[in-house]
Formats: sequence, C-alpha cells, structure tokens
Amino acid sequence: MGRVTARRRVLRIRDGVPSHRPDTLAVEEPLEIRVGGRPLTITMRTPGNDFDLAVGFLVSEGVIHAAEDVLAIRYCAGATSDGSNTYNVVDVALAPGVPLPDASLERNFYTTSSCGLCGKASLDAVRTTTTWTIDEDSPRVDLETLTALPDRLREAQRVFDSTGGLHAAGLFTADGQLSCLREDVGRHNAVDKVIGEALRADRLPLRDSILMVSGRASFELVQKAVMAGIPMLAAVSAPSSLAVDLAEESGLTLVGFLRGTSMNVYTGAERVRAELVADLLR
Amino acid sequence: MGRVTARRRVLRIRDGVPSHRPDTLAVEEPLEIRVGGRPLTITMRTPGNDFDLAVGFLVSEGVIHAAEDVLAIRYCAGATSDGSNTYNVVDVALAPGVPLPDASLERNFYTTSSCGLCGKASLDAVRTTTTWTIDEDSPRVDLETLTALPDRLREAQRVFDSTGGLHAAGLFTADGQLSCLREDVGRHNAVDKVIGEALRADRLPLRDSILMVSGRASFELVQKAVMAGIPMLAAVSAPSSLAVDLAEESGLTLVGFLRGTSMNVYTGAERVRAELVADLLR
Repeated sequence: MGRVTARRRVLRIRDGVPSHRPDTLAVEEPLEIRVGGRPLTITMRTPGNDFDLAVGFLVSEGVIHAAEDVLAIRYCAGATSDGSNTYNVVDVALAPGVPLPDASLERNFYTTSSCGLCGKASLDAVRTTTTWTIDEDSPRVDLETLTALPDRLREAQRVFDSTGGLHAAGLFTADGQLSCLREDVGRHNAVDKVIGEALRADRLPLRDSILMVSGRASFELVQKAVMAGIPMLAAVSAPSSLAVDLAEESGLTLVGFLRGTSMNVYTGAERVRAELVADLLR
Repeated sequence: MGRVTARRRVLRIRDGVPSHRPDTLAVEEPLEIRVGGRPLTITMRTPGNDFDLAVGFLVSEGVIHAAEDVLAIRYCAGATSDGSNTYNVVDVALAPGVPLPDASLERNFYTTSSCGLCGKASLDAVRTTTTWTIDEDSPRVDLETLTALPDRLREAQRVFDSTGGLHAAGLFTADGQLSCLREDVGRHNAVDKVIGEALRADRLPLRDSILMVSGRASFELVQKAVMAGIPMLAAVSAPSSLAVDLAEESGLTLVGFLRGTSMNVYTGAERVRAELVADLLR
C-alpha cells in the first residue's frame, strides 16, 4: 500500500513569490482487470485495495453478486518482459457456474441491439441487469444525519489532506456511522472499492446504507449504487440528468449539493426524515 | 443543441426548511464514436459539439492529426428500432490513406506487449504515438496572465451558473485571451471538444496555447494536451503522479492549484515569466 502517494519537487508561487518545495501527489497507475485470465478492462486508479476494486467493478457490471461467486483473486506476475510483478494486473477467477462476462461488456450498459443508443436504452440496460430491487421502506434517514455526512467524510480523508487530489466514497449506516472509506484519483474507482469490500465480506445488497461521494453524481455512480442495492446516494455537487432519471426509475434516493445545512433531494424524498419534509410531501 | 440542460423538480432544503422548486441539470447522454462505420468507443457526455468531440478523441488517440485526415462526419440515423436518429451515434469517415485505428485502441495507451502494464509503459505509449514535439521555447506566459485564467474561464461558463454540474476546458492564447470554451459532464470530453474544434479549423498543433481545466489534472488530460501539441496545461486542482511524469517527459508545463495569486508549477517552470521565478531558476 506504499504507493498511494508520491513526492515531487514543485515550484510554488504565492503572491508572486516563488519557492521550491516537495509536494505530495496522489499516485495514478493503470490497473488491468482480468476475468478467468482474459483481459476485461483497464482503469487508471490509485493503487491500493485493488482486489476490492476488481470485484466491485464486476458487481457494477452485473457479473457477480455474492462472495461465493468469486473463487480466487490474484495479482498476475510475469506481465513484464523481466518477469517481475507490477501489481497492476488483477485476475478474478469466477466460481464454477458463474457465467463469464460478455466480451463487449463495456458496451452492454449503454446500448441494446433493439433500441439503439440513448438515455432510455442506458436505463433499460441497468434495469435488466439489476439483481436486487431497492426496498421502498428502508432506510429513513434523519435530516441531521445527512447534513453531518460531508464533514465526517472529509475528517476521514487523511490522504486528501496531503494531496488534495483524491476523490472519496464513503459508505455510511442509516444513522450516519462510517463503515468504509475509499479514495482514488477516479471517483468510480473509489465507489467500486467500497462495493467490492462489501461483496468480499458478503454484505450485499447494502440495504441500510448511504453512499456519499465527494464530487458530482453521474449516471455511472447511480448505476453502481443500484447494482449494489444501496438505497441512498448523496453527493457534494450536482447530479446529471441521466443520474436523476436512473435514480427515479430505480427507487433510489438521490441527494445533491449536500453542503452545510442545505441539500437538494432529487428523487426518493420520502426517505429523508424531517417533520417539515413530511408535511410538504403529505 | 437544446439538450445541454434539462429541468427537473427538486426538493430543496435550506436550514431545515423544505420547498419544491424546478432545478436545471446538465444533460448526460451516451455518445458512440464510430470510425468508418465500426464502433470504437462509447462515452457519457453532454450533447453538443459532438463532431468536435469525436475528432478530438481521435486526435488524443493518435489516429488523426489534421483536418484533411477527416473525409466526413455525420450522425447515424436508424440506430433505433423505429429508425429515428438519437443523435447519439457519430461516424467519422477517414480520408483515403489514413489507417483505421486498432480494434483494441482503448488498450494501446496503457500497455505494450513487451513491457507489461505500468506507469512507464503508459508514458512510452504516448511518446511513440505523439506527432509533434513540444517546442522548448514557446510560449512564455506572464505570471499575471496565468493568475487571471480561472476567473476568465468561470466568467465564460454561462451553463455552469445554471447547473453547477459541468466541467470546463478553455483554450487560451499565451497572452490570456480565451479562444475556445467547452463544457461537459466529463472533463475529458470537454478537452476533446476543444481539441476537435481546433483540428477542424486546421490549427493543430496548438503551439502557442494554454489549456485550462476546471478540475484536477490526470494522466489522460496531459496525454490529450501532448497529443494536440499544447505546451501548457493549467488546472484548478491537483495533478496525479503520472500526470506530472508525463508532463515532465513531454516537456509540457503543468500548473496545478491555480487559485487567486497562487499556483504550483510541477514541470516546465521556465515558461512562467516572472522576475522572481527567473531568479530562482537561474
């Protein structure tokens, strides 16, 4: 895990005054994810929790759903000409009976042969791949619990303090306790690492959880939450139109611009527990 | 181009007081890029300037380098079962003699068969694909010009004001004049749109330009700047380790944390024109 940050010499300029100083950067390296020895995808990620990242990605893509679907995970040695291990290639062996993913897996989520390529096709693709439906009832989350999440996430981001360069994803219980924090140069990787950790502990679906992300909420992030059975996604910044559409269709509560005591609830507002909200929704 | 933003009803909560109001969101839709009729990649993007996005992506991947490399660009109709045009599939016809991209193009940048998968292989892949080298001399940029860029970018971001959800990429001249601004839910798309616009105007390589991005600087963004011959990339937030490595190796000036009158110059500091900087570098 010693590869999360790297030091570089930097010219710092403050109010016109330059100085040389060492700077701490978030490490970015490629990770190739293989399934049964066959290369599936490459992502640029921050090293660390790579096994979680690999299986979390496979959950997001609908390939696996439980710890028992995975037979083994290992780093592939010998990928380089000198036979050394770069720790940048992970191979996931699926349990007998678990179908190998489609070779064109990356395309599956965004297009179907019958409908062509559009937002609606993207929504349909997620719906047909989802293993769990999001329970209408649980969880209810207090307004105060929600407004406390950004600070709790940031407090937990020790690496963020040193590099300022990492996205964070935090998994919280319905009463606001942090159960897992992951950081990465790519926010989708941070979410995959959180979900993969839960899969390996056999805790999917994550029915009573809130997923909080440091940035914006894209279609892809809502997709990952839905595929893990997470009923609530909160983001510091704005969601996209398709993120809201998928949240609406999946019954997921999507909160954006969660800052201070303010937020926008885009979908599933009935899960936000506050007297004034209940009055308004009534 | 009426699809850049969309309206949704949102529950807004301020200091515990909820109210319903319409909210403006950045639109996210899939775009499939085809070359010569063959699907190459799918990206989730904000509609608009799709032709620029398609050819800019091809510049970043080393497939094309000049306007004459492109014979035609068109939206593919008939992708849906009812034969309608979703405007989400773009086909680029290459000029005679321009080689079709490798089917496994997405993998090319991150791995080579001889070296295996690591950061160094990623750097090597960009070096062997680059058409232009970055001129050591040009441009020199005044410190005051650099510090003015974030405000100029933000002022130009009209859509940002309404959604808060879009990444921006701005191309500036060496004296700080904005020549092109593009916004997108994905920052790599915004950069591809800027570069694609320049290619179609036959202005590559962009030797005397500064590319400014609203977020962080990843390996991928530095790669795109290098492939377009841009000598300076400035970002509001942090770069990754591999972004700095690629900038160093390519002779690109990489500026991060450009805020107010402060910045970090990670590589190529000799292009930052300021008396105190010159003294320090001497």
